[in-house]
Amino acid sequence: MTKIVFMFEKPLGMRDTLPALYEAKKKIRNAMSSQIESWGYQFIETPTLEYYETIGEASAILDRQLFKLLDSQGHTLVLRPDMTAPIARVAASRLYKGEYPLRIAYSANVFRAQQHEGGRPAEFEQIGVEYIGDTTTSADAEVISLMIAALKQAGLTNFTVPIGHIGYVKSLFMEIVGNEARADVLQRYLYEKNYVGYREHVKNLPLSSIDKQRLLSLLQLRGNDAKIAKAKELVECEEGKKAAEELEMLWKKLDAFGVTEHIKIDFNLVSHMSYYTGILFEVYAENVGFLVGNGGRYDHLFEKFDRPAPATGFGIRIDRLLEALDLPQDEPEIHCVIFSAEQRDEAIRFAMNKREQGERVILQDIAGIKDVDACTSAFAKNTFFLGKTRKEEE
Amino acid sequence: MTKIVFMFEKPLGMRDTLPALYEAKKKIRNAMSSQIESWGYQFIETPTLEYYETIGEASAILDRQLFKLLDSQGHTLVLRPDMTAPIARVAASRLYKGEYPLRIAYSANVFRAQQHEGGRPAEFEQIGVEYIGDTTTSADAEVISLMIAALKQAGLTNFTVPIGHIGYVKSLFMEIVGNEARADVLQRYLYEKNYVGYREHVKNLPLSSIDKQRLLSLLQLRGNDAKIAKAKELVECEEGKKAAEELEMLWKKLDAFGVTEHIKIDFNLVSHMSYYTGILFEVYAENVGFLVGNGGRYDHLFEKFDRPAPATGFGIRIDRLLEALDLPQDEPEIHCVIFSAEQRDEAIRFAMNKREQGERVILQDIAGIKDVDACTSAFAKNTFFLGKTRKEEE
Repeated sequence: MTKIVFMFEKPLGMRDTLPALYEAKKKIRNAMSSQIESWGYQFIETPTLEYYETIGEASAILDRQLFKLLDSQGHTLVLRPDMTAPIARVAASRLYKGEYPLRIAYSANVFRAQQHEGGRPAEFEQIGVEYIGDTTTSADAEVISLMIAALKQAGLTNFTVPIGHIGYVKSLFMEIVGNEARADVLQRYLYEKNYVGYREHVKNLPLSSIDKQRLLSLLQLRGNDAKIAKAKELVECEEGKKAAEELEMLWKKLDAFGVTEHIKIDFNLVSHMSYYTGILFEVYAENVGFLVGNGGRYDHLFEKFDRPAPATGFGIRIDRLLEALDLPQDEPEIHCVIFSAEQRDEAIRFAMNKREQGERVILQDIAGIKDVDACTSAFAKNTFFLGKTRKEEE
Repeated sequence: MTKIVFMFEKPLGMRDTLPALYEAKKKIRNAMSSQIESWGYQFIETPTLEYYETIGEASAILDRQLFKLLDSQGHTLVLRPDMTAPIARVAASRLYKGEYPLRIAYSANVFRAQQHEGGRPAEFEQIGVEYIGDTTTSADAEVISLMIAALKQAGLTNFTVPIGHIGYVKSLFMEIVGNEARADVLQRYLYEKNYVGYREHVKNLPLSSIDKQRLLSLLQLRGNDAKIAKAKELVECEEGKKAAEELEMLWKKLDAFGVTEHIKIDFNLVSHMSYYTGILFEVYAENVGFLVGNGGRYDHLFEKFDRPAPATGFGIRIDRLLEALDLPQDEPEIHCVIFSAEQRDEAIRFAMNKREQGERVILQDIAGIKDVDACTSAFAKNTFFLGKTRKEEE
């Protein structure tokens, strides 16, 4: 390994953001932030590095995806893999004066170590909210409606939000297969969205044909709100029926927010193997077909910080949203003013004036450039203050 | 070490930014960014993690201040300790299409490992620019004038920008003490701003009383532009005189920009032991007396990236600027709308309406709160949609 190899290299999954992309990101970040703020959420920032014992273990991210390092005292630190656990740390600490419920927002880079080149980004920006201390489905409805409003504000029009309930899935599986280990196997098929594997697995289970049929019927519970009534019929236990009723209530509230055109009921949705505890959701941009964000209720995380509280939230990936939006990445229009020493004062006055009027203006001493043509060709407009003449050129 | 100890702990020097501070930071970041953009600089973003071989070694920061980690291939990574080296990496690579000169800006967190608690922040935000590929003092004048304009835009009024020239200091020392090792000792006293130590050291040098007097006279070269003529008299070699002339030229150009009221000439300024190569400067907020930023010319950094280019730039620390500004950190005004199920639709319409008018409005289901009084006391304004009545309360 020679030094020359590393000269321009970046670590696996690390990327530069050049001006056009930077402006596009800033635009959608600002659009989403202003929507989030208008719903009364307040932004906070947490450190890039956290103790592994505090955040790494509480996070929903796999251990091998964590960037770890040792500090000078020998403690293990991690680069934050998500923002939910750090926000829980802050919201649970006495430093945070607010009474529950709390509405907190963030816009921050998170880190996931990558094993292979050409793969996923190891650092990406997430924007999201956490609504802490409210058990009602009104909280879930608010978070989902806000996510939809923020995406629309950013310019996304064509997207779907599948909504499910992990409590429904778990209780249906438990009442049919009878123990958690077997239920987990079924749940993993759904988590991996491997419906073919699920069917195969169900066929081979030592169950009555009625129970097998019930497990297969679950796969049909995706569509509009009519699926909720069917879900209530399919499950027998109180807990399962209660979960379906929660989704029923949620649907009504989302209807009051006027956002149901984007919603799809999906009782097969399992976004994470252990993190979520109730209603959960994802969001797909239809033109590109990939996940731009997700969220849901996580009522157990705060127990880890000694201040139990229910909570729900969403996180949107800015990089994926940008890809889905497919914005034109225009270079900004810059006006270049090239001057020689004789007309420095005039050129400065001219530039200051234009800047005050909102133009982006470069002031360039002609003595500082080697090739005037190459320099001017980079700009939308050029004005020359050379010798005794002033000449504008579009 | 028990887990409970770590529950709410953050690593050494790591801090949370709560809402009021977040808003204040955002405000000054936006003010400075818009000024920087209006001067034709374009913002870019680089990864938080870089290869040690690429950036860590090229950086101006001491090795023990670097946060280091190993990636899965066994390469050493660092959390970027500054933005100048990463921007040089990008600007020197072929990925960056722009012709020199390039005007690049950044607003990013940088990292410096701390050894003791209660000390300095280990992560802080810097906003700055790099002007690459222009050797003229017009480039230095632009960078300094832009820094002053950006600070003013952020609301700072009372500040001083001492400007010096490392080439002057080095050539004066070399012509008097004759070798680099001895010159470095003198330079270090100035770097540490230890003028008492400098005087003591000079007294004990094996030099003629005339030469000792010349070294002591250097300490008088701080003040207005009249000091430049005195500096030209003090130095004998061509290089030293040329450095003083550069400062003379710079002063004229800064005068053309109308910013000399903030400038102090300081031929004792040594901002860094090896980084800068010519004109250099710092900026002090007068009310708090500490450094909020610095900058200067660094004409050798690009050689490390195989594309030699002159460059100059500045970096401002947002945390220190915030302290100097002493802004009132007000919580934003939030209007809370509390509703019961019966009037959900009315409450949603009311809130949507207010949000469109620019208000920040929380919609709170009364079923989601335990203590209505504690909840409402947190907000500037409350409106109730309960049962069949609507009641507003300021």
